[in-house]
Amino acid sequence: MRPIRAVIYGVGSMGALIAPMLLHKGVEIVGAIGRNPAKLGRDLAEVADLEAATGVIVDDDAPQVLGTCGADIAVVSVGSLVGAMYDHFRVCLENGVNVITIEEESLYPWLTSSSLSAELDELAKRHGVTLTGSGIQDVYWVKLVSGVVGSMLQLERVEGRAQWNVDDFGPEVAREFRVGATREAFHEAVSGDGWYSPTVRNTLDALAAELGLTVERSHARVTPVLATADVRSKSLAQMIPAGRVSGLVEAVRIETREGPTLEFEMTGRVYDQPLDADTSEWLIRGEPAAVRLANAGYSTRLLTGSIIANRIPDVLNAEPGLVTIDQLPPARYRPLPLGDYVRW
Amino acid sequence: MRPIRAVIYGVGSMGALIAPMLLHKGVEIVGAIGRNPAKLGRDLAEVADLEAATGVIVDDDAPQVLGTCGADIAVVSVGSLVGAMYDHFRVCLENGVNVITIEEESLYPWLTSSSLSAELDELAKRHGVTLTGSGIQDVYWVKLVSGVVGSMLQLERVEGRAQWNVDDFGPEVAREFRVGATREAFHEAVSGDGWYSPTVRNTLDALAAELGLTVERSHARVTPVLATADVRSKSLAQMIPAGRVSGLVEAVRIETREGPTLEFEMTGRVYDQPLDADTSEWLIRGEPAAVRLANAGYSTRLLTGSIIANRIPDVLNAEPGLVTIDQLPPARYRPLPLGDYVRW
Repeated sequence: MRPIRAVIYGVGSMGALIAPMLLHKGVEIVGAIGRNPAKLGRDLAEVADLEAATGVIVDDDAPQVLGTCGADIAVVSVGSLVGAMYDHFRVCLENGVNVITIEEESLYPWLTSSSLSAELDELAKRHGVTLTGSGIQDVYWVKLVSGVVGSMLQLERVEGRAQWNVDDFGPEVAREFRVGATREAFHEAVSGDGWYSPTVRNTLDALAAELGLTVERSHARVTPVLATADVRSKSLAQMIPAGRVSGLVEAVRIETREGPTLEFEMTGRVYDQPLDADTSEWLIRGEPAAVRLANAGYSTRLLTGSIIANRIPDVLNAEPGLVTIDQLPPARYRPLPLGDYVRW
Repeated sequence: MRPIRAVIYGVGSMGALIAPMLLHKGVEIVGAIGRNPAKLGRDLAEVADLEAATGVIVDDDAPQVLGTCGADIAVVSVGSLVGAMYDHFRVCLENGVNVITIEEESLYPWLTSSSLSAELDELAKRHGVTLTGSGIQDVYWVKLVSGVVGSMLQLERVEGRAQWNVDDFGPEVAREFRVGATREAFHEAVSGDGWYSPTVRNTLDALAAELGLTVERSHARVTPVLATADVRSKSLAQMIPAGRVSGLVEAVRIETREGPTLEFEMTGRVYDQPLDADTSEWLIRGEPAAVRLANAGYSTRLLTGSIIANRIPDVLNAEPGLVTIDQLPPARYRPLPLGDYVRW
């Protein structure tokens, strides 16, 4: 047994959150890759607000870092679509470094980016490493839901609803969600083909795979949430005037060949009320019951970080390739240093 | 692939519930074992309210039935303690028949009946078959809770609370819960050593094992629930006068060597209010969050039946021995005939 060696690939809001979690779980951080000129050349400790200097300097030369630091795994928190992430994943895989990523489409990219998925799978297999997407979806929107469905004889319909604070995930996500835009600009962006959000669709694709169901058709609807009063966006460091976009609601319904329908409505918006809180609620209908599953009290952002940490041994233990969470057991509680759970 | 062949061992309330569920999932019922003279010699269809005659006659000669019917598995719903169930389990195992049981202590009997557990494990291994306990606890009180804990870096405390209707589980459970007794008689029974309920303790033992924690100490407290008005117990077919026992609250706290404490308070009582409903609520405290997990809308009785059905392929696929649920993956949704999931 030995410590896991990780690269923090992307040192924005989420990378900076995950770094201390990894250190807490006995992971050695051996590299940090960023692109923000204000962070390059600095010790990761300054960027991620760590207690002590790490000696790891934020670098923008990914091939150089990955080729020399001897990492087992890269924790990749850069963007939200497989297409945009392909080169980032490729440089990891080609250097024999496993990947875990919060990039949302990678949770289950097989249907929405089939050929890129096949390429990444082939690349990972050729280099004997694994690529897996995870985050809050993994536990709260897929595995727990599947756990409830596992108690039923017959599934008819899954209806999910979740909410989280867009401001918790850094400026990239807030911009992607068009926070601050006018209603007209939002609709223009959405009605054109310039906007596509993978989170909900790919969560349901993962859930379908987990339940052994085949996706036949999917319908998506995106509607803006407008600020009811002026609200400050922390991540964008700007005021959002009342009437401007403060977030969005993304709703997807999937029909499956086997019959059950899967629906999920996700709200991501800048919180502006004192009681605004992250929630996840599911109603699972079938025989012999309709069961309600509700989670509350948590921070989507913090749990995304801890789920990524707990998943690292699963990724290192998995077969090479693009391995989606339906192929993995549920994330487990990991009280010992994470390296102790790896079958070296 | 072929259909699974099952024996219904115990044709009371729960056996009669599970039989049609198994038929619905393509399981062949090849035997039925009972002890109630009013049921012996009758077709299982009459006893379990099935649509068509099965040709399976309820018999009280367990060795004879198990030795001749060629069953793969016995679904055992007879009593609530390993000690009382030992001979029932033994006759199954010795005849090379796997066992799945709703008997509560068997969910995780290693700590409360260590030597009987070791004997059953040895017996099952010798005959190449598996014995597993399951029921509502498996999904709602162990695997879902573990799923949430799997999202956290550090676990501090688990606090659970659940409620179900004692009247849903037949007269044995109602009598075991002292429904109809005076408060004095209840306390006498509980303070003597004549009363021990395994449900809560063994659920927490299973949860501890699932989480990789070691039980160090456990504290149990049982208090009666008194009927606030006259209430009819359906299962006992008698009126419970106001002031008499209508159920009980069982609360157990477990301290673990690793630190986290596990608490669970379960109320089983005869429902007497229109809004009385089965619920399961857990608060999981730790880092980075305290997460609430709530399930509602379901029937504990019905889901116990469907969970038992869904678990059958897992039991048939497991290694021989006493295999508790911490050694199994979560129960899965099984849309196809159950025999299709068995690695014959």
